[in-house]
Amino acid sequence: MAYEFFYWPGIQGRGEFVRLALEDAGATYVDVARGLERDGLGVPAMLALMRGENTSHIPFAPPFLRDGKVIVSHTAAILLYLGGRIGLAPSHEDGRLWTHQIQLTITDVIKEVYNSHHPIDEDKWFHEQKNEAIARAAIFRRDRMPKFLSWFEHILEANSAGPNHLVGSFVTYADLSLFQLVEGLSFAFPLASERELAKLPRVTALHKAMADRPRMKAYLASERRVPFKETGIFRRYPELDG
Amino acid sequence: MAYEFFYWPGIQGRGEFVRLALEDAGATYVDVARGLERDGLGVPAMLALMRGENTSHIPFAPPFLRDGKVIVSHTAAILLYLGGRIGLAPSHEDGRLWTHQIQLTITDVIKEVYNSHHPIDEDKWFHEQKNEAIARAAIFRRDRMPKFLSWFEHILEANSAGPNHLVGSFVTYADLSLFQLVEGLSFAFPLASERELAKLPRVTALHKAMADRPRMKAYLASERRVPFKETGIFRRYPELDG
Repeated sequence: MAYEFFYWPGIQGRGEFVRLALEDAGATYVDVARGLERDGLGVPAMLALMRGENTSHIPFAPPFLRDGKVIVSHTAAILLYLGGRIGLAPSHEDGRLWTHQIQLTITDVIKEVYNSHHPIDEDKWFHEQKNEAIARAAIFRRDRMPKFLSWFEHILEANSAGPNHLVGSFVTYADLSLFQLVEGLSFAFPLASERELAKLPRVTALHKAMADRPRMKAYLASERRVPFKETGIFRRYPELDG
Repeated sequence: MAYEFFYWPGIQGRGEFVRLALEDAGATYVDVARGLERDGLGVPAMLALMRGENTSHIPFAPPFLRDGKVIVSHTAAILLYLGGRIGLAPSHEDGRLWTHQIQLTITDVIKEVYNSHHPIDEDKWFHEQKNEAIARAAIFRRDRMPKFLSWFEHILEANSAGPNHLVGSFVTYADLSLFQLVEGLSFAFPLASERELAKLPRVTALHKAMADRPRMKAYLASERRVPFKETGIFRRYPELDG
């Protein structure tokens, strides 16, 4: 049976990390909220689950995944669940956990990226908190982004199976997520990202290798890949780069 | 062999969620960074692992746990690893995942609590970002805290095994973590928390039930439980409550 994937349509957001894994694995899935209401899909089908209709495992927020009777929310938990099933995580517990930890660190960066343009109130507009965003984004560019990115470089370097992958000697969902993180940072902070990535050859090479995988290439060129825009996690506001 | 637990000594912080699980389970563990350097413990032993000495699974940040050759970082991942082993999570995959998802939602609240007093720069002092903190904390009290806490009330209500536990019919680490969340919020935002909790009988009852468990009671009264203070996640600044 196809996986049912639930996320806000029209943006990449947190859901995109799951989409990349499903797409790269060639898994069969329905992007429910992008479907038609007359087919029982669309945003209303997503909101029904969030109201607890037909489940006691009520997601706090999208993204979430339904696989038969199982519902999993939180990007990193969805990928933990899917990883072994779609061939994008090691089979042994230690490797699965390590992949999950890397993903949880990506979750942490993502939250800080979001706060760089919404430091005070997630429900208000950027222009209503612009001065605070300028202050916060400067710290993100100077301290946080380099700290996170150099950790990825460090663990690639420390991988005993070689620096081509984050975990072991084959591609995991963590590699695909690091691709997406680099892609997003390069969109949101083109100047700062270029400067940082120049110091990080392993991260840069991994990003390129993931973009060149046949199914990734096909997905990235498809209409299913919505472009980055000023409503997702990664937003290009020139005031926040430098 | 005893679990080796690593976290900054002297504060509760994110590590406290793990400590509560270990303590309630009566597990044998060494709180490494609180030990003596002459015994090979203390903060230097923690920092050595973060530099990648003797491991390729380098933690980005504390807390982390070592169990023989396995190293796990991130509070929620540590609890995922420990849960089944110390009797604080269901044995079946669906239940384990649901417990983990609840914990990941607690991770999200915790980050927002931290940002309520550090909205701009995590490495600077509160008084250097006080006005921004006042603005952000007001949003947290008005929108975010009620949204998170009412979700916990909602899933307690939806639990088919009854509202005494978050997952199934016995205590999991998620219950202990919700105790700690309520405890922390009541310390940091006494006025706002009291107002919210008055509307949430199930969350309030769970908090009380956890505090009454014999091993929890013993731990909370011990010297191992450091008090809340103005250096952890939960901080009482009167300007931020109301």
